[in-house]
Amino acid sequence: MTYQLHKKFKMFSLNSNPKLANEVADLLGCELGKNSTTRFSDGEIQIHVQESVRGGYVYLVQSTSQPNNEHIMELLIMIDAMKRASAKRINVVMPYYSYARQDRKARSREPITAKLIANLLQKAGATRLLTIDFHSPQEQGFFDIPVDHLTGIPILAEYFMKKQLEDVVVVAPHNGVVVKARKLASPLNAPIALIDRRNPESNVSEVLNIIGNVEGKNAIIIDGLVDTASNITLSANALIEAGAKAVYACCTHPVLSGPAISRIEASPIKELVVTNTIDLPKEKQIDKITVLSVAPLLAEAIDRIHNEKAVSPLFE
Amino acid sequence: MTYQLHKKFKMFSLNSNPKLANEVADLLGCELGKNSTTRFSDGEIQIHVQESVRGGYVYLVQSTSQPNNEHIMELLIMIDAMKRASAKRINVVMPYYSYARQDRKARSREPITAKLIANLLQKAGATRLLTIDFHSPQEQGFFDIPVDHLTGIPILAEYFMKKQLEDVVVVAPHNGVVVKARKLASPLNAPIALIDRRNPESNVSEVLNIIGNVEGKNAIIIDGLVDTASNITLSANALIEAGAKAVYACCTHPVLSGPAISRIEASPIKELVVTNTIDLPKEKQIDKITVLSVAPLLAEAIDRIHNEKAVSPLFE
Amino acid sequence: MTYQLHKKFKMFSLNSNPKLANEVADLLGCELGKNSTTRFSDGEIQIHVQESVRGGYVYLVQSTSQPNNEHIMELLIMIDAMKRASAKRINVVMPYYSYARQDRKARSREPITAKLIANLLQKAGATRLLTIDFHSPQEQGFFDIPVDHLTGIPILAEYFMKKQLEDVVVVAPHNGVVVKARKLASPLNAPIALIDRRNPESNVSEVLNIIGNVEGKNAIIIDGLVDTASNITLSANALIEAGAKAVYACCTHPVLSGPAISRIEASPIKELVVTNTIDLPKEKQIDKITVLSVAPLLAEAIDRIHNEKAVSPLFE
Amino acid sequence: MTYQLHKKFKMFSLNSNPKLANEVADLLGCELGKNSTTRFSDGEIQIHVQESVRGGYVYLVQSTSQPNNEHIMELLIMIDAMKRASAKRINVVMPYYSYARQDRKARSREPITAKLIANLLQKAGATRLLTIDFHSPQEQGFFDIPVDHLTGIPILAEYFMKKQLEDVVVVAPHNGVVVKARKLASPLNAPIALIDRRNPESNVSEVLNIIGNVEGKNAIIIDGLVDTASNITLSANALIEAGAKAVYACCTHPVLSGPAISRIEASPIKELVVTNTIDLPKEKQIDKITVLSVAPLLAEAIDRIHNEKAVSPLFE
Amino acid sequence: MTYQLHKKFKMFSLNSNPKLANEVADLLGCELGKNSTTRFSDGEIQIHVQESVRGGYVYLVQSTSQPNNEHIMELLIMIDAMKRASAKRINVVMPYYSYARQDRKARSREPITAKLIANLLQKAGATRLLTIDFHSPQEQGFFDIPVDHLTGIPILAEYFMKKQLEDVVVVAPHNGVVVKARKLASPLNAPIALIDRRNPESNVSEVLNIIGNVEGKNAIIIDGLVDTASNITLSANALIEAGAKAVYACCTHPVLSGPAISRIEASPIKELVVTNTIDLPKEKQIDKITVLSVAPLLAEAIDRIHNEKAVSPLFE
Amino acid sequence: MTYQLHKKFKMFSLNSNPKLANEVADLLGCELGKNSTTRFSDGEIQIHVQESVRGGYVYLVQSTSQPNNEHIMELLIMIDAMKRASAKRINVVMPYYSYARQDRKARSREPITAKLIANLLQKAGATRLLTIDFHSPQEQGFFDIPVDHLTGIPILAEYFMKKQLEDVVVVAPHNGVVVKARKLASPLNAPIALIDRRNPESNVSEVLNIIGNVEGKNAIIIDGLVDTASNITLSANALIEAGAKAVYACCTHPVLSGPAISRIEASPIKELVVTNTIDLPKEKQIDKITVLSVAPLLAEAIDRIHNEKAVSPLFE
Repeated sequence: MTYQLHKKFKMFSLNSNPKLANEVADLLGCELGKNSTTRFSDGEIQIHVQESVRGGYVYLVQSTSQPNNEHIMELLIMIDAMKRASAKRINVVMPYYSYARQDRKARSREPITAKLIANLLQKAGATRLLTIDFHSPQEQGFFDIPVDHLTGIPILAEYFMKKQLEDVVVVAPHNGVVVKARKLASPLNAPIALIDRRNPESNVSEVLNIIGNVEGKNAIIIDGLVDTASNITLSANALIEAGAKAVYACCTHPVLSGPAISRIEASPIKELVVTNTIDLPKEKQIDKITVLSVAPLLAEAIDRIHNEKAVSPLFE
Repeated sequence: MTYQLHKKFKMFSLNSNPKLANEVADLLGCELGKNSTTRFSDGEIQIHVQESVRGGYVYLVQSTSQPNNEHIMELLIMIDAMKRASAKRINVVMPYYSYARQDRKARSREPITAKLIANLLQKAGATRLLTIDFHSPQEQGFFDIPVDHLTGIPILAEYFMKKQLEDVVVVAPHNGVVVKARKLASPLNAPIALIDRRNPESNVSEVLNIIGNVEGKNAIIIDGLVDTASNITLSANALIEAGAKAVYACCTHPVLSGPAISRIEASPIKELVVTNTIDLPKEKQIDKITVLSVAPLLAEAIDRIHNEKAVSPLFE
Repeated sequence: MTYQLHKKFKMFSLNSNPKLANEVADLLGCELGKNSTTRFSDGEIQIHVQESVRGGYVYLVQSTSQPNNEHIMELLIMIDAMKRASAKRINVVMPYYSYARQDRKARSREPITAKLIANLLQKAGATRLLTIDFHSPQEQGFFDIPVDHLTGIPILAEYFMKKQLEDVVVVAPHNGVVVKARKLASPLNAPIALIDRRNPESNVSEVLNIIGNVEGKNAIIIDGLVDTASNITLSANALIEAGAKAVYACCTHPVLSGPAISRIEASPIKELVVTNTIDLPKEKQIDKITVLSVAPLLAEAIDRIHNEKAVSPLFE
Repeated sequence: MTYQLHKKFKMFSLNSNPKLANEVADLLGCELGKNSTTRFSDGEIQIHVQESVRGGYVYLVQSTSQPNNEHIMELLIMIDAMKRASAKRINVVMPYYSYARQDRKARSREPITAKLIANLLQKAGATRLLTIDFHSPQEQGFFDIPVDHLTGIPILAEYFMKKQLEDVVVVAPHNGVVVKARKLASPLNAPIALIDRRNPESNVSEVLNIIGNVEGKNAIIIDGLVDTASNITLSANALIEAGAKAVYACCTHPVLSGPAISRIEASPIKELVVTNTIDLPKEKQIDKITVLSVAPLLAEAIDRIHNEKAVSPLFE
Repeated sequence: MTYQLHKKFKMFSLNSNPKLANEVADLLGCELGKNSTTRFSDGEIQIHVQESVRGGYVYLVQSTSQPNNEHIMELLIMIDAMKRASAKRINVVMPYYSYARQDRKARSREPITAKLIANLLQKAGATRLLTIDFHSPQEQGFFDIPVDHLTGIPILAEYFMKKQLEDVVVVAPHNGVVVKARKLASPLNAPIALIDRRNPESNVSEVLNIIGNVEGKNAIIIDGLVDTASNITLSANALIEAGAKAVYACCTHPVLSGPAISRIEASPIKELVVTNTIDLPKEKQIDKITVLSVAPLLAEAIDRIHNEKAVSPLFE
Repeated sequence: MTYQLHKKFKMFSLNSNPKLANEVADLLGCELGKNSTTRFSDGEIQIHVQESVRGGYVYLVQSTSQPNNEHIMELLIMIDAMKRASAKRINVVMPYYSYARQDRKARSREPITAKLIANLLQKAGATRLLTIDFHSPQEQGFFDIPVDHLTGIPILAEYFMKKQLEDVVVVAPHNGVVVKARKLASPLNAPIALIDRRNPESNVSEVLNIIGNVEGKNAIIIDGLVDTASNITLSANALIEAGAKAVYACCTHPVLSGPAISRIEASPIKELVVTNTIDLPKEKQIDKITVLSVAPLLAEAIDRIHNEKAVSPLFE
């Protein structure tokens, strides 16, 4: 497949995931724009865009993965530079949108940081967001600019279909992810199950009830992201205890912070399938983890946005 | 319990639920402000506030229940009148927030009407929202003004606790409401179950799988609102078929439109427990429906807001 | 006359006046875009735009005639859908702008609903308004986006010129419409008269004084809109009593609510000439009413806007 | 009558009408705040507020009379100074709002300067406008902050009532002022008449038709403001020719620019009654002109605003 | 050099410096757009744009030199007219930005008028600013729209290089202008000196200390603008006393108000070199003053902006 | 000195400088509010305010020193939490405002990060900024909320006055800081000197020219902040070479990043005097550095702001 981009198209990568940005650029047949992001000795970010973007349709590729706050500030400063340099459109391509879990006040006097980030991006000058798998789809409504909200679930589903596992059950490792489980289960023509957590009394540890039938089945746990891997490894144990034949896991965003890798290694999970919205450093590239690329999805979306064609076919 | 409100407190009712507004006013020991909402012959709303609100801390009570659009416009016009009449604070008390289900783009080229309404309220001049049980808690983030988001689930839970049913299972009638099911189940110390819907092939009707154990149990279906009652009555049938001893249902918002009442009458549901966020007209007040009042909850919240005390105790 | 519209032109009709939208589309030689506006059972509007509008120059045709609030909400929701679907320009074509009479605070603590609507349209995302005969021309200033404010008076004038009535006097049926009367009178080379209302004392009914000479003349009453027809029918009676030979009436917007049709039937008015900014349902299409089309005016204006040619010739 | 103002009340006068500001301050029993407005050599305005306004409820008295642009800029700069000096509320008291006649696009490609001024005032930081007799009442809708729109017509009416003229007719000197004529005529229990202007053919000068009966009557011409006095003096001539016994004139705002004074002197107008919203310099204080003070009206309004009492009684 | 401008390019001159606007238009090979700026008798500005600007990329040339407030208001009103006439982009070309010296609060309760002007321009609808030598470069940050900030110093430097003066020292006449002095000194390969002012005790007049070596040198005083010329003439005297061979002076903006011309005439300054950002009236065009044109700089910048080429080469 | 703060006063410290916050709280006689700032495993900041702030006048103390981006994000998230928790006023107390050096575009296509931060703070919900010694005073104009801009120079001056050095010269180590040098020199009744840097030709290193007389004097170098200490240590060397008797240095903000401490140790600087706007970690607390406290200045300012008294006396 070849893409056509007129000359005012400019794509820039920031520092969180240049590998993915390059992959997308290769697919689009373009080169990344030249910019430098350096640091002053005291840690202040200094950005310089090294080619004219006047009148340009700019795409800025930045996941706000770890270190999150650095990556967010870097992006905001870049947007400001682009705005003042007379870019015509500033499209933010954020494969992973951090702070997305803070999307509501769970307790009194908490922030809604995911909305704050949305406000900051718009105030800085972003004119569009292209992202993949928000924590909740409602986060689209945090924006007043157009949001193209893609999903990595079909990529995960396609992988598991090719694997031709039998007797699959898709498992939601907590209450909030049942809708996603159904989305993965449908193309696999599989039933779903759910891990329900209860704190019966104080001083008694949380109980994980498996709701649904998993015995003798290949269980695929799905979540939006895997952070410390506590959820999926505890769930995997419970599934094995409940008689599951094997346990797989998958998610779009491999945050994998803290003890995540060692937990996964030690768990009965046979394979964790993720995408490259977040770049995995060498030390996290273990055998159990399979990484699928979202670059073709992003390239196709960017081409459609840039050439003002419907993005909807990407959802069908 | 008695409340103290200083003289600049003013509460007004609009036309959707004056009964609830009066109940709240009675609890607060105040009188509703005087305003008239009339119609021109062609349907245009004409609002006149009949007492000074200059410098006032105004509370406008309006659910945006049917006819939704009329109630929304009435509210927006009232806010405009209040703003121009120099009210100091315009607190919108909206027990039921309509269009809340349209909180994300489910398909391409759909609006996010729940966010639009949030934008319209803020543009008109609202300075705070007090509401009960949004469709999704993320809708708090649609606002940049403070939102006090109350929940009616404890009121429902308390009712069922008093009923002392045995062998209870709380049932989520679709994937999106599992979190709510857990919230009701915890105080009842009950497990949860889930109705999972699948469309196996075209021309074959949707299949409802019950995930979790319901046999011989008292099932309590919970949803955020009950609109046409299709969901809960189909679920009730499935539960009975699966061996449930009895089926109850509950929700915060009794929208109950179209065939809802006749479906409920014809269904195996023994009792539908709702709150009065939406005023039920006579013809919908059938024996099977029990209405609990949110007025004490709202009165307490308004007192705390007005006197600048923490609202958080209402969540504990 | 033929028009040229490049491919990014998209015109959509909403539900208030599809007949007029189709007439305009025919004149422009284009087809209306595909969209669906359905209702949930509880009355919530559900909009789905069924073709890509990405990068499009969109024109949304909607009069906010009865039921006004429904039509306003429908339009706002459509604008939100268009904005989120990445339309480039959202031009609102509103032949009749309801609530335009509420354009000032006539009493304390009233809203200025016409301004509120302007704020809501802009907040939702409208980037231009094309409308016909506001209640007062100052309403252009309620907007910070460009407004193309057309007038139907030349269409009415042309009709009466063709009629070749002799001894014409143009009559303002109340004080606020004298400027419009002069605008109609000038091309007809006619004098004007004015109906002045006084409430001499309480308990005595309003007196209508005719100021100006109407005896033996063909009186043409003009108003911006005719709503309940009270004004024009009382005026017609007074004119006949004062010796007018015959009474005609005209207006741009045939609101014609409540008792309007029966009053007109019963009145000495020979003919009421209106335009089709508001679609007249069958039961209002009586013999006495002549409907002139604004479609050519709108088509010409849309072509000029779309092709960035001056709209001013339409006023000359 | 005595007023009570708490200590955070601060009233400042700018340079257009310090006499009126002082009169209002005297009535309110307060002193004007200390501020200096000087000019740099090149004409730049330099403002310094010479006492703390931190947390203050500030009232800035400034008519934007000649030189209009200087007075507008002076006001905007003062508002900026007040905002940055942490004033809590910035109430603009603008007895005369210039540019009010430019309240709509009369031709293509004209500004709506009255709206522009409204936008500038709000952007600078004004939180309320108190003004007298806009050109059109719709201008209230140019603002999103509260506007207290007073009228000087009752003051003019009271003066003419005391004069006890007999056989009065109130005359609108052009079409746009008929509503105002009715407002003055009602308390005087008088009929109205109207001067209708027509331009029959080119090269033929405008014809003034008097519509209504003026013969043998005391005609009182009313307009919102008198600028060059062309309108009212031509109208006065026409009225005398038509047999009026005597001609009086009145308006709220005595702009009186250019040839106004000499025209009035030379005209058959017996007396021109105005208010002091605009300060008349010595050379314009001719015998024919009677100046009534709006200071009591403003003082009463400011007291009511400051003490959060209804302003509506001032309209009754 | 020839420029290419597509048909939607429109440049208009307002009243402050039509000579410069014409010079730029000549260089660009285009004609100025037709607009009229007239005055009502009372001083209100009336603007009418006499050709269509629909969809146009408009450039408005206006220095806000004396009378500053008139020129600012004229510009703001013109921007409003352009916005309402559907111009696509409104580029403000303001060679001299007045009030730039009021760019911070030097004392409590002062305005920051330079920021206020920035806010007003943006609120009115400006979408870009092109200006020359702000008082401080930080003023770029007063804007959220793109600012192209050019400098006249290279023009001044080039002039002095051609003059081939020997033993040059560039002198900052006060502390705030040392950075500018270095900018002029570098291309001239010259050292700098500084006039430091001290007020030792009250009742003792200010002392001017020359810091740096000026003896026997050709001193070139530089400032951003010369207003009353007090600074540069006092400095010139001090320099001569300190043994300078000759004194030249230069600045970008010749404000030259009040006693400036007579002071310069009477001073030891041999030549004052300025640019034509501000149009010098006849009486200020004295022999000692040399005027260099910024028109080539502006023409080049406008061409680059309009054709979306980098403006950066103009700084190199 | 004792302060009085009413009960709605709440001061919170974030993580950059709790020592200073505590010192200010002690002086004010209040306790810091309770809040927790924790980190999720992946680095996301989680804020929880642990006491009600409803209706509160909140003061948030946070320098945005290293790690800058973390501290900025922490502050923005806290502001969001406070806004949603119904705080009435959110006063940001930022003793050190990082990114202040990026206050203009020094080259094409650079951001103006100091303005971006200002925009972000305001968008998040800050209602006032209290800060000390911006990089340039113009940064006040980056805000539309009130800014109380204090200065630490009098604190530095007082220290040096007490030291009673003789033959003092205050030295600006680069062109941009001459104004600050004069501010310190005036209370010390001292002359100033300036280090002027030139890059004569490429491949030749920068030359530091001392302009002004330093021989045999006690030189005090002043800068706004000291970051890598390159500037002041090179300047110190040059001053010693030029015959200065001794070299002192001072600044408000001790950024002291990278090689700063070792450079200072190795330099001829006898003493570096700084304030505690930035908390110095143990390893930077070397003998040569003297730290003065700004806590009394901040306490006094906060008291004046909170009690709505003039802050201006702090500048006199």
